[in-house]
Amino acid sequence: MKLHPLWQEYPTLQSELTETLALMEQTVKLKNKPVEKAVLEMIHAGGKLLRPAYQLLFSRFGPEQDRQKAIALAASIEMLHTATLIHDDIVDKADTRRNLPTVAASFGNDVAVYAGDYLFVCCFKLLADYAGSLHSLQLNSRSMEKILNGELGQMDRRYDQQMTVAEYLDNISGKTAELFALSCTVGALESGTSEKFAKQCGEIGLNIGIAFQIIDDILDYSQPESQIGKPVLEDVRQGVYSLPLLLAMEQNASAFAPYLDKKAAMTDEDTQTVYQLVQEYGGVTKAQKEASRYTQKALKAIRKLPDDEQNTRELLWRLTNQILQRTN
Amino acid sequence: MKLHPLWQEYPTLQSELTETLALMEQTVKLKNKPVEKAVLEMIHAGGKLLRPAYQLLFSRFGPEQDRQKAIALAASIEMLHTATLIHDDIVDKADTRRNLPTVAASFGNDVAVYAGDYLFVCCFKLLADYAGSLHSLQLNSRSMEKILNGELGQMDRRYDQQMTVAEYLDNISGKTAELFALSCTVGALESGTSEKFAKQCGEIGLNIGIAFQIIDDILDYSQPESQIGKPVLEDVRQGVYSLPLLLAMEQNASAFAPYLDKKAAMTDEDTQTVYQLVQEYGGVTKAQKEASRYTQKALKAIRKLPDDEQNTRELLWRLTNQILQRTN
Repeated sequence: MKLHPLWQEYPTLQSELTETLALMEQTVKLKNKPVEKAVLEMIHAGGKLLRPAYQLLFSRFGPEQDRQKAIALAASIEMLHTATLIHDDIVDKADTRRNLPTVAASFGNDVAVYAGDYLFVCCFKLLADYAGSLHSLQLNSRSMEKILNGELGQMDRRYDQQMTVAEYLDNISGKTAELFALSCTVGALESGTSEKFAKQCGEIGLNIGIAFQIIDDILDYSQPESQIGKPVLEDVRQGVYSLPLLLAMEQNASAFAPYLDKKAAMTDEDTQTVYQLVQEYGGVTKAQKEASRYTQKALKAIRKLPDDEQNTRELLWRLTNQILQRTN
Repeated sequence: MKLHPLWQEYPTLQSELTETLALMEQTVKLKNKPVEKAVLEMIHAGGKLLRPAYQLLFSRFGPEQDRQKAIALAASIEMLHTATLIHDDIVDKADTRRNLPTVAASFGNDVAVYAGDYLFVCCFKLLADYAGSLHSLQLNSRSMEKILNGELGQMDRRYDQQMTVAEYLDNISGKTAELFALSCTVGALESGTSEKFAKQCGEIGLNIGIAFQIIDDILDYSQPESQIGKPVLEDVRQGVYSLPLLLAMEQNASAFAPYLDKKAAMTDEDTQTVYQLVQEYGGVTKAQKEASRYTQKALKAIRKLPDDEQNTRELLWRLTNQILQRTN
C-alpha cells in the first residue's frame, strides 16, 4: 500500500491518509474474491486521495477533534469517488485507468455495475456509522444527486457543438467540483464548525474542483498519450467537448465542424487535427487563464481562513497551489 | 398512475401506496428528460409495491404514528428496489421487464448505470430526510451490502452444477429476502417499537422474501412465455440455477449435465428439454413444498403479533397468504 509521493511533504496528513486507505481496505469484504481483488487494486492504484485530504484538512477547524471519525469520513468520500470511477469506466468504455485495466475491462460490465454499487454502499455505511447526525447524509445524498444529474446532463449534450462555456462549467460543477465541495463542507461541519463556516469551506472546495477539472481537460490537449492514463481525445470522439475545445470553437466553429460532425466515426487523424486546431485557436491558453481564475479564487478564500496551531491554513494554501500547478 | 389491482381489497393501504408512488414521482428530478421519463415509466410500470406495503403495515405497530414519514420511508425502499432492478437488467442483458423495454434496452447500458445510481441516491436522500436517527441508515446500508454480496456471490457460482440448495437459499436471502426483511424492520423500528420487536418483524420479512423468490423461480418452470415478463429459462442459459432445477438435479444430475454443459450455447430446444426434465424429476413439486415451509413460518409468526385497532395482524396474514399463493 503506497501513497502518492505528493504527501511526503505533509507528514501528518500522510499518516492520516495511510490510515484512510487501511480503513477502506478493511471495509471491503466480498465473498466473490476476484471482484474483491479488483476493487482493492482500484483502491490501491495510486489515486491522489485529494478529496479525503481536503476533508481531513478542513476537519481541523472545528472544536470537536476526533481523528478516527475524520479518517472514517475521509474513507467514505474516497469510496464514493472510487464507485463513480468504476461506473464512469463502464459508461466511457474505458480499458485502463491509472495505467491498470478497469474493473469493466477485466470482469465485464456486469461485475463493474455491482462493484460500483458495492462501493456506494460502503460509503453510506461508513457515513451512517461515523457521522454525528443525519445532516451529513443529507448533504452527501444531495451532492450525489447533483453529480449524477451532471453526468446524465453531460450525456444529453453529447456531440452538441452549440454547447456553451457556461453549460460546460455547470456540468463540471456537478461532475467533479461537487465532490470536492462536499469533502470540505462535511470535513468542517463534522468537526463542529458553524453551518456558515462549513458553507464557506464548501465554496473553496467548489472552486478547487472546477480548477482541477479544467486542468484535467487541458492535459488532454497538452500531453503525449504515454504520459496520461486514458487515451488522448477519446472524449471528443465520444462527443464530450471540454473547455479548450469550446474556447477554440468560439474563435472559429466552422473550422471544427467537418471533423466533429463525424461523431464516433472520427479517425485518429481527425482527432489529431482537432488537437492542432485547438492549439492554433488558443484554446489551451484561454482555458489555462480560466483555470487560474478559479485557482486564485480558492487561494484567496483560503488566505482568509482562521489560523490554527497545526498551520492548516498554510498547508491548504500550499497543497492547493501545488495540485493546481500540476502538469501531469 | 395506477396501482396493482391487488390493493383494491386493502383500501387504507391502497391510499397510502398511492401517496408513496406520488412521492417517488416527485422525488425524481432529472435534467436529462428522456432518462427521467424512462425512470418514471419504470416506477409506474405496475410493480406490486410489496416492499413498501410491508413497510407501511409494520409501521403501524409502534407508538409513533407519523404517516407522512412512513410513506416517505416506503417510497425510499421502493426506489432502492427499482434501482436494483435497473442494474440487474444491465447484468442480465434483459430486454423487457414488466412487459416494457428495460432502461438498458431503451437507452443503453451507460444511461442505465447512472439511472440506477440516481435512484439509489434518491433512496438515501429520502431516508436521510425522514428517518428518525442514523440507525435506519445503518440497517439500510448493511442490507444493501448483503444484497450486493449476494448478487456478486451468485455471479461467482454461475454454471456451477455442484451448487447446493443451502447455497441457493443463501443467495436468495441476500438477493431478494433481505429487502423484505429490511422493509419490515425499518417499518417497525421507525414507528418506535423496540429493537427486539423490530428484529422479529425482520425475520417475518425474511421468510416472506425467501418464499416469494422460490415461487418466482418456480414460475419460470410452470408458465408459457406469454404469461411472464421475462423469457422463460433465460436464467439457465446464463448459468443461474434455481431451486426447481437444483432439486431435480439432486435426483439425477447426469441427466442434466449434457445440456447444462453447453452453458451460454444452449439452444431453445436444450432449455425446453431441461424444462421437461425438471418436471419429470419432481423439481417443481419439491420446490413448492419448500416455498410452503417458509410461507407457513411467516404466517405462524404473523399470528403471534399483537392485535391493534386497525386489524394490522389480520391484514398482514391475508396479504402474505394471498401473494404467496400467487400463480402469476
